[in-house]
Amino acid sequence: MNADDRLTRQIGFLVETEKLKGILRKTSPIHIERYENSAEHSWTLALMAMVLAEHTDEKLDVMRVLQMLLVHDLVEVDAGDTFCYDLAANATKADRERCAAERLFGLLPEDQEREFRQLWEEFEARESGEARFANALDRLLPLLQNFHNGGGSWREFGINVERALERQQPIAEASTALWGYARSIFEEAQERKLFQVNASANKS
Amino acid sequence: MNADDRLTRQIGFLVETEKLKGILRKTSPIHIERYENSAEHSWTLALMAMVLAEHTDEKLDVMRVLQMLLVHDLVEVDAGDTFCYDLAANATKADRERCAAERLFGLLPEDQEREFRQLWEEFEARESGEARFANALDRLLPLLQNFHNGGGSWREFGINVERALERQQPIAEASTALWGYARSIFEEAQERKLFQVNASANKS
Repeated sequence: MNADDRLTRQIGFLVETEKLKGILRKTSPIHIERYENSAEHSWTLALMAMVLAEHTDEKLDVMRVLQMLLVHDLVEVDAGDTFCYDLAANATKADRERCAAERLFGLLPEDQEREFRQLWEEFEARESGEARFANALDRLLPLLQNFHNGGGSWREFGINVERALERQQPIAEASTALWGYARSIFEEAQERKLFQVNASANKS
Repeated sequence: MNADDRLTRQIGFLVETEKLKGILRKTSPIHIERYENSAEHSWTLALMAMVLAEHTDEKLDVMRVLQMLLVHDLVEVDAGDTFCYDLAANATKADRERCAAERLFGLLPEDQEREFRQLWEEFEARESGEARFANALDRLLPLLQNFHNGGGSWREFGINVERALERQQPIAEASTALWGYARSIFEEAQERKLFQVNASANKS
């Protein structure tokens, strides 16, 4: 493949990734009354990694964390965002995302296809320290958003404290400090009754 | 400052940066009919740096480019986005953004305040190879967006080809390959008359 072909494929891939800006999650940015899209979500996670990297329990390659976070949601371009508390959608998530990875990363030149696919698979597997930290941030952000938005998706979808707390376990696997912080947020959220199941009143 | 105070300041900073998702630019993501916000814009630029880094004229520290791109628009949280073709707004841009940097980065612990401020100042100064490449991507993205959106902000705001071409010069300073690509886009855009000044018809 000559240099021009490489560049054409790379730009074609980047043009396709613009679609991530139209994929909506079920949480809202803090104090902004609309759902967050997966592109701006990925930006915040990368920024969080820059700011919070010192709090991990093991020494990490922060560059790898950034790269992983920048690409981790790209498969949603085809597969859509799967709401973490939607059991039916989660049953087919892995298959849908594998097909998406095949097509989307396949737009890149072969060496980069491998590189990007590995980053995504590493994130999903949660086996490396870098992947554990990246996953921890991916859980911490909606926690902060729901907390500062007066309950956010917890209230809107009637999520109780047990389910929300279980969802946050990856933070404990990556950082004692961030887990301590997350638990303090949970306690305050419970005091403020942000987990009170009151779905009908909040869906109007 | 103890560890808890540091973490509290860091999270306070991150909560504040959520506002970048409400700062709108004057270009739209490709095939999405709304203006792009500066958070999702920053995500694409970082992704572009990962994909296109091989095309720079000098060997670069890609991690530094990523960090710069992730923070380069944060001052807009206070200063707003300044449309590049708005001469009056550009006359006060530097002052507004300096004040914003003072307040926003000042939310971080001191060592990180210095680090983030240096990243932003390096981006703005365009003197390092990393900053030149980061700036080149910041120009290339709206070029791609306007091209694929049938003229986009060029048509909406009646920008002629000379002004648009002048605006793209930072690409030439960073990458012969990307500059060649940008020029080919310009030629095709001219053939398709995407620069045709027809502001009134497009502002309805």
